[in-house]
Amino acid sequence: MNIVGNPTSAVEETLDPQDWEAVRRLGHRMVDDLVEQLSTVRQRPVWQRVPDPVRAALREPLPVHGQPLEHVYEEFRSRVRPYPTGNIHPRFWGWVMGTGTVTGALADLLAAGMNSSVSIFDDAPSLVEEQVTRWFVEAMGFPETASGLLVSGGSMANLVGLAVARNARAGHDVRAHGVGGTIFTLYASSETHNSVAKAVELLGLGREHLRKVAVDGDFRIDTGALATAIEADRAAGRRPLAVIANAGTVNTGAVDPLHALADLCAREGLWLHVDGAFGAMAALSPELRPRVAGIERADSLAFDLHKWAYAPLEVGCVLVRQADEHRAAFAAAADYLAAARGGLVARREKFSDMGVQLSRNFRSLKLWMMLKEHGFAKLGRLVAQNVAQARHLAALVDAQPALERVAPVPLNVVCFRYRGGLSEPAALDALNRELVVRLHESGIAAPSGTLVRGSYAVRAAITNHRSRRDDFRILVDACLDIGRELEKTT
Amino acid sequence: MNIVGNPTSAVEETLDPQDWEAVRRLGHRMVDDLVEQLSTVRQRPVWQRVPDPVRAALREPLPVHGQPLEHVYEEFRSRVRPYPTGNIHPRFWGWVMGTGTVTGALADLLAAGMNSSVSIFDDAPSLVEEQVTRWFVEAMGFPETASGLLVSGGSMANLVGLAVARNARAGHDVRAHGVGGTIFTLYASSETHNSVAKAVELLGLGREHLRKVAVDGDFRIDTGALATAIEADRAAGRRPLAVIANAGTVNTGAVDPLHALADLCAREGLWLHVDGAFGAMAALSPELRPRVAGIERADSLAFDLHKWAYAPLEVGCVLVRQADEHRAAFAAAADYLAAARGGLVARREKFSDMGVQLSRNFRSLKLWMMLKEHGFAKLGRLVAQNVAQARHLAALVDAQPALERVAPVPLNVVCFRYRGGLSEPAALDALNRELVVRLHESGIAAPSGTLVRGSYAVRAAITNHRSRRDDFRILVDACLDIGRELEKTT
Repeated sequence: MNIVGNPTSAVEETLDPQDWEAVRRLGHRMVDDLVEQLSTVRQRPVWQRVPDPVRAALREPLPVHGQPLEHVYEEFRSRVRPYPTGNIHPRFWGWVMGTGTVTGALADLLAAGMNSSVSIFDDAPSLVEEQVTRWFVEAMGFPETASGLLVSGGSMANLVGLAVARNARAGHDVRAHGVGGTIFTLYASSETHNSVAKAVELLGLGREHLRKVAVDGDFRIDTGALATAIEADRAAGRRPLAVIANAGTVNTGAVDPLHALADLCAREGLWLHVDGAFGAMAALSPELRPRVAGIERADSLAFDLHKWAYAPLEVGCVLVRQADEHRAAFAAAADYLAAARGGLVARREKFSDMGVQLSRNFRSLKLWMMLKEHGFAKLGRLVAQNVAQARHLAALVDAQPALERVAPVPLNVVCFRYRGGLSEPAALDALNRELVVRLHESGIAAPSGTLVRGSYAVRAAITNHRSRRDDFRILVDACLDIGRELEKTT
Repeated sequence: MNIVGNPTSAVEETLDPQDWEAVRRLGHRMVDDLVEQLSTVRQRPVWQRVPDPVRAALREPLPVHGQPLEHVYEEFRSRVRPYPTGNIHPRFWGWVMGTGTVTGALADLLAAGMNSSVSIFDDAPSLVEEQVTRWFVEAMGFPETASGLLVSGGSMANLVGLAVARNARAGHDVRAHGVGGTIFTLYASSETHNSVAKAVELLGLGREHLRKVAVDGDFRIDTGALATAIEADRAAGRRPLAVIANAGTVNTGAVDPLHALADLCAREGLWLHVDGAFGAMAALSPELRPRVAGIERADSLAFDLHKWAYAPLEVGCVLVRQADEHRAAFAAAADYLAAARGGLVARREKFSDMGVQLSRNFRSLKLWMMLKEHGFAKLGRLVAQNVAQARHLAALVDAQPALERVAPVPLNVVCFRYRGGLSEPAALDALNRELVVRLHESGIAAPSGTLVRGSYAVRAAITNHRSRRDDFRILVDACLDIGRELEKTT
């Protein structure tokens, strides 16, 4: 890098603007554009490929010298904003991604303006995060003594929960001595999200010691097979550590039998971690809560809030039943972090003692504002609305002879495929794979694709507060049109 | 939780506002308030304790029903914003925390408005993050083939770097089989930040296998002691894995001898990870770059951008010299993440293959906008300006017989204490501990405190683009005033 310029200039510089009034006007424009963008999102394609000239423009040499912020914003408007992932759109149902809200976006502005670190300090942002996590402790039916931490999302929530499990249950001081030669085993259904395996790998436990237990016809873990696997590991001298239960599997939304797993874990002395990435939100709806009954018995529970709580990225939450075990997994003494009798570090309970990060942003503000604005009751109704929309979509699919549903719909995920007159598995897979690509490229709708029992399926995971019933008819019509077109050329 | 309400209501609901125009007006007010808050921050105390009535008000029952967003914002204005951590203030120099910028805050609004997940998708936000990490690859002098990932901050950057080190150098497939019985040893100076020990613990390697190597009089790692420690571990059958070098230690800003460590690591076949949390930013200043010479030889490099690059929280970066080793540590195949020939997942290089998270927010936007607005040259000048301010503060301290500097000032950290007529170590510690608390409570300035060679010291880490030379005189005057006051009562 060839940075030419004065060494230290004589006049002290700052990153503050010379003209605050100009920034104020530009900020107003940004708000206007944001409102325009979100209130008209339905009129635009769900997704569109970044055109090659824009791709080229987004590869620039390192900017040695600056330019007016207004110019930078114009580049954002022309090169960046038109090409989002698409999950703000009412017909985006790919993977599991939340819609975001305008309140959440404004809250991120306010949070970044304060720029507080929610960590070891005695300040209002720390109190707000405490408040928000206490609300989720209550909403999930955890005991008041449980601890909670907001994290970047489900992957980190799973990592934190399993780190606590490892450190609390290994039987030796893993933090000091390491994992060592003992083989610790963990158990989860074959439908479990990859972030669990990633956490097991990162914790040094070895992916092959995460037993992928078979599922039943509804994609729920087979508790008999689980018990057999635990017994076999014990007999072989390995040390069973934890069961990871799914509240909403990524592929089909299946919920493992949580009460049965909690009973089994209690009997066997195993840690029960629930990955409730999106499914845990069913607990917020009185009508859906029975579907995740037993979730309140977990030793640790991970869930996203940027998925089915619709908050903008990034925010997830991990709850740990025994707060002392939570802190024991991460707490550390360091000279530069010591608490004091008063001032900035009068605070005794440090957020950094409950997870990986020391510096942490004020991500709780968007939850605090959204939950106070809308209330938990409405959030629960929206979750139930998405589940009703999934049932509606399933019915639309079932009514079409050319389409075929390939999994039950226990919650908000619908897996189906175009079948038409085809029966050859490879041809069906190829057609449906191409169908998803063409749907994306059409801009009409964005489901994702996955393999269900080895067959490629179109998958709609509905965690979208902008979707309306009619949007699902549009999806089905597009699948039929594209499917028929593709079938002709097969 | 007793959520009373309709089950699924007949009319479909949304979290979008009924009145977009009202949100637009409120957004304008938020921008106005933000500009007011930041442009007048110097006129307010650096920090003030949240008053008890406000604390009580921030403990509310779970909000079942909603309220107008305007009310929620009023609560934010009265209960939250007046009580930040304080690092936006020109006289905040505690721990190591960045100031933030108005551009960064506005960029967070824009990013949350798009709500894109920078992960596996073919979209503009992914291209922006690629661009920003390429700039830092170049700025740090890494080869073009290196990989980079934006993360939440230094703790996560250290974790990712050391995870790559572990997986690349353990000599067996740690991801599959776990750490196992081999004892892997790591080496870092006694001045190393706790996040490194936290990462070692999390990775299952055991904190006691992180050797805390002695430092010289300038708080730099003693390379002779390091070589001896490595030799002793090898002789005892342990397996040396990595050296963690500091580019800017947390306590005093010391920079380990990076070239010597790179030579040693090359000789010994060890991974060199550099924790450059703030110190790496010295590489952006032509006049300071020699102080971190050798940083470009690291196998992995961690640095924050919400510290000495002044961006709002959260953003840090990890660079890995060999991109294939980076991806090999995290890459995973999952049915629901498979790439396609086109559409949303035409992208082959996944950000989720380089770190813990799958869903990731658009944190690169604030860097992209700030770097394009101000340019790297100005960023380097500001870093150099903070270093010059540290020298200035050191000179002010040295000129006061009642004050005593307790460590060299190689970069931007100044450690000193009030001495007055005292000499008894315990009394000096107690007085200076109280002095820091009173400084915070006065609202005049916010340094932090730490132990330097066992003695309590006032510590100013200057990573603040709003500080002016005169601010350091105010700090010194306040220390003298409070110190004299306290000495009277000792």
